[in-house]
Amino acid sequence: MTVRADLNISLDGFGTTTDGTPENPFGTDWGRLVDAYTSTRTFRERVLGITDGSGTTGVDERYAANYFVEIGAEVMGSGMFGLGLYRDDPDWRGWWGENPPFHVPVFVRTHDRRESLEMEGGTTFHFVQGSAREVLALAVEAAGGQDVRIGGGPSTVREYLGLGLIDELHVAVVPILLGDGVRLWDDLRGLEKSYSVSSEAAESGVVHITFRRTA
Amino acid sequence: MTVRADLNISLDGFGTTTDGTPENPFGTDWGRLVDAYTSTRTFRERVLGITDGSGTTGVDERYAANYFVEIGAEVMGSGMFGLGLYRDDPDWRGWWGENPPFHVPVFVRTHDRRESLEMEGGTTFHFVQGSAREVLALAVEAAGGQDVRIGGGPSTVREYLGLGLIDELHVAVVPILLGDGVRLWDDLRGLEKSYSVSSEAAESGVVHITFRRTA
Repeated sequence: MTVRADLNISLDGFGTTTDGTPENPFGTDWGRLVDAYTSTRTFRERVLGITDGSGTTGVDERYAANYFVEIGAEVMGSGMFGLGLYRDDPDWRGWWGENPPFHVPVFVRTHDRRESLEMEGGTTFHFVQGSAREVLALAVEAAGGQDVRIGGGPSTVREYLGLGLIDELHVAVVPILLGDGVRLWDDLRGLEKSYSVSSEAAESGVVHITFRRTA
Repeated sequence: MTVRADLNISLDGFGTTTDGTPENPFGTDWGRLVDAYTSTRTFRERVLGITDGSGTTGVDERYAANYFVEIGAEVMGSGMFGLGLYRDDPDWRGWWGENPPFHVPVFVRTHDRRESLEMEGGTTFHFVQGSAREVLALAVEAAGGQDVRIGGGPSTVREYLGLGLIDELHVAVVPILLGDGVRLWDDLRGLEKSYSVSSEAAESGVVHITFRRTA
């Protein structure tokens, strides 16, 4: 069982955008940040349901395909589920539609007590309180021996990294400068000393950096 | 004539280190930040004078060799010359020994008025006052049609980037996290829109990112 995390960040280190509006909560920068990822064949098939074989098939696709392999449960922060914006809406069911792309139990860390949401396709959102370790333990148990993904956002991934709880981190560094947002790397000086680190550049210009725990 | 800049930065965006001491002014992190660069054959020959053919010959070497091609003059900040630490020492002649690796006129931006220093091998340090544009104009004139390099440090490169005065930026992103220091990318949101950006991963794990001006 491996605890994994995958994130897209800008070259200046931001994993979120700040140009959101009520109508467009992720802002226009979000599309630029995830463009290479959402252009892959895997994303188009797995998330958008477009099964005509379109989408990129190079280095970005290889990482996108790996994203979904062997994941048995997921942990995400409340912001990634949208509770920052939709806290007062009891009917809010997340950003991903009725058939979310996770297809596993998803543990949303929040102080809010909400009923679990059983979606189509095997995704169930559980709204859980507790420390990072406690919530991870719930996900590990639910994963039944498969891997657990710390899905995001960057603050959540950074907290788990700081606690030494992530075995494999894949970061897609997108060569754009966002200038503001939530940084993934704050307060992680020396992180690389517990990992082997490899780098691979994709045709899109995105750089894939993978940390695999060695210590 | 092209205005170029080359820098090594950490994965979390820092182009300087903060663990320096009076005895070891760059700190131990500096060696880690520039390790892949200083291991290249070009660096060993050109800077260290080791001509036995040792040193790496892969992707990092290709960028290192390019670093010295066609440069006719250089601009650097006072910190890169060491005036932060050695301001009160009238005999201070920079970090690079009597035969510095530049071999061209170097314009050091500083408020201090100092006599020019003619070193061995063609390097002359000129200590100049004036705006970023004014100092660049001096270097362009001195370069006689060859390229000008904005040598660093990161604050100086960032200032020239912000003014739109750099035509080609090469950044070697080193997969280590320093946690603190001077950031290259602050306040450069959208910089990529005026450049084409390409990425290449080296055997060392260092990622070379090149911005070439298109607008």
